[in-house]
Amino acid sequence: MLREIREQPARLARFCDEAGPQLRALGRRLRRKPPPVVVLAARGTSDNAALYGRYLIETRWGVPTSLAAPSVVTLYGARLRLRGALVIALSQSGASTDIVEFLAAARARGALTVAITNHGGSPLARAAHETVLLRTGPERSVAATKTYTAQLTALSLLIAEAAGAPALAARHADLPAQAARALRIEDQVREVARHWRRLEGCLVTSRGYNFATAREAALKLKETCYLVAEPLSSADLIHGPIAIIERGFPVLLIAPPGNAFPHLAAIAARLRRRRADTVVLASDPALLRRATVPLAIPVAVDEALSPHVYVIPLQLLAYHLSRLRGLDPDRPRGLRKVTRGR
Amino acid sequence: MLREIREQPARLARFCDEAGPQLRALGRRLRRKPPPVVVLAARGTSDNAALYGRYLIETRWGVPTSLAAPSVVTLYGARLRLRGALVIALSQSGASTDIVEFLAAARARGALTVAITNHGGSPLARAAHETVLLRTGPERSVAATKTYTAQLTALSLLIAEAAGAPALAARHADLPAQAARALRIEDQVREVARHWRRLEGCLVTSRGYNFATAREAALKLKETCYLVAEPLSSADLIHGPIAIIERGFPVLLIAPPGNAFPHLAAIAARLRRRRADTVVLASDPALLRRATVPLAIPVAVDEALSPHVYVIPLQLLAYHLSRLRGLDPDRPRGLRKVTRGR
Repeated sequence: MLREIREQPARLARFCDEAGPQLRALGRRLRRKPPPVVVLAARGTSDNAALYGRYLIETRWGVPTSLAAPSVVTLYGARLRLRGALVIALSQSGASTDIVEFLAAARARGALTVAITNHGGSPLARAAHETVLLRTGPERSVAATKTYTAQLTALSLLIAEAAGAPALAARHADLPAQAARALRIEDQVREVARHWRRLEGCLVTSRGYNFATAREAALKLKETCYLVAEPLSSADLIHGPIAIIERGFPVLLIAPPGNAFPHLAAIAARLRRRRADTVVLASDPALLRRATVPLAIPVAVDEALSPHVYVIPLQLLAYHLSRLRGLDPDRPRGLRKVTRGR
Repeated sequence: MLREIREQPARLARFCDEAGPQLRALGRRLRRKPPPVVVLAARGTSDNAALYGRYLIETRWGVPTSLAAPSVVTLYGARLRLRGALVIALSQSGASTDIVEFLAAARARGALTVAITNHGGSPLARAAHETVLLRTGPERSVAATKTYTAQLTALSLLIAEAAGAPALAARHADLPAQAARALRIEDQVREVARHWRRLEGCLVTSRGYNFATAREAALKLKETCYLVAEPLSSADLIHGPIAIIERGFPVLLIAPPGNAFPHLAAIAARLRRRRADTVVLASDPALLRRATVPLAIPVAVDEALSPHVYVIPLQLLAYHLSRLRGLDPDRPRGLRKVTRGR
């Protein structure tokens, strides 16, 4: 897991080079004829990448986007009206049974289907009109890391072109260096791991593009540390769940610069008033100063691409916290790399 | 809260009588000209009703449906392509700022907008083309209960008509009696509350229509008992989070009869092998026998309408567990009835 986390800067650079032309060509096609709706189908870590895709597609491209509930097809046999829709399925292995079934059904109903996967010969790749390969090399760790950042990058390169956003497309050139900078805050990450070594549960919160980062961080903490880490959009947090937060309650807040920042800074103040135990991943010095333990990202990143960078210290946190608790992050109990079943 | 939980059978009967004609008329209009996409916008408990609506709309009507991320509009200023779309906003108070803003933006972009709310004079009602009133009388408890089951019923009556499903429409006549039967398992509920009185956290899981029930039960347990209760679709549970479940780990499983049942029974077996501490809400005797503590629903309910009934014992559980822990379920800390903010 640690090796794969550290491979990410090089993998992202290679992915942009090698997959760029295909994604730009597909993006140009979509720009000429935007679909009425996009449906993203995925499970687990890939579903967190899909959540990012949803925010990016709606914000930059304006096409209403749905995160698929595959069971409407696989359990209930729904006949979805998907003629002309764009259906993107994300799966590292390309072997998740219900995702393959959902994509095949969507294709039969007239959707344009795209698979984003690490395995070109997989059932998902065979079922789709077009396959985008993640090109990360084999991912051996059960906890997915480098395929996640490659999935995010596939989506952002594609949508930058579909939405006609050349500035966003150009900013991908900075990603490898930004990812490398994020890797270098490992000492701060170790400090957080020591602070939270006896943790049983926590909330993980953010908003907008980085709600995906919150969900992915929570999933990594579950998989590798067996923590009850619950992700919540900070907008949902104040509709009920805020009640559970009292003095010392652990909350991980992800608050990069951008449009969501003022809201997230207000949430941080509210958490402080409730005396929560806050770990804050941010680059704003004032916000970081008031965290219980700060995780300072020392590099400016465009908000739309910040999930690619901000997730990296949280992958490292899952790894180091797992080790510190005497666990083996490379062999989570009860999990296999490929999850089958409908 | 307890009084409002117990009012539900009578409120549901009245709602079907009084709102039925309006919902049937709107449903007929939608049936003649189905929209290309439905977007449901809500927060908190109302968002759990929206999640149910999403499964029902896709399964029975076939229209791709998205749960809105209001921040794409309120924070990022997205211009969503919603001409011809159906946008349904759900809010008990009708005063949730970001939901009102999302609906108004959707209307300006050419969507047909429907508000489902308990307050006819609210900003949401004023912003929408059409308003469906929940007619539950004032809901004084901060933890929403009767407005939730009324929202579910508004959606199921509307979609039964839009989808041309007269059998589903007719089955609403049984709902008040079924809700009354669900209220009468309060002794079993008290048994579960005693069993879990010292609980700190749990997972709540189901699939398909009742994933909404799992989310709503988890939210009620958070609001009234300050429990870290995390809802997970059972399909997502096996993609990673299953790792956190070890001997004695508390899991609430909601497994009514229907298409999701075989999958949920397999999950129950997997939880047993991991020696989880399971509370199972079901009507299947074999499944109930193998639960740590069973919650037996003594009445047959169509799966598509089962969320309306199965949530009731879980509302009671939140109430009784809160009382048993010395808390006041009517005054959750840090919450107000109307949540503002974008």
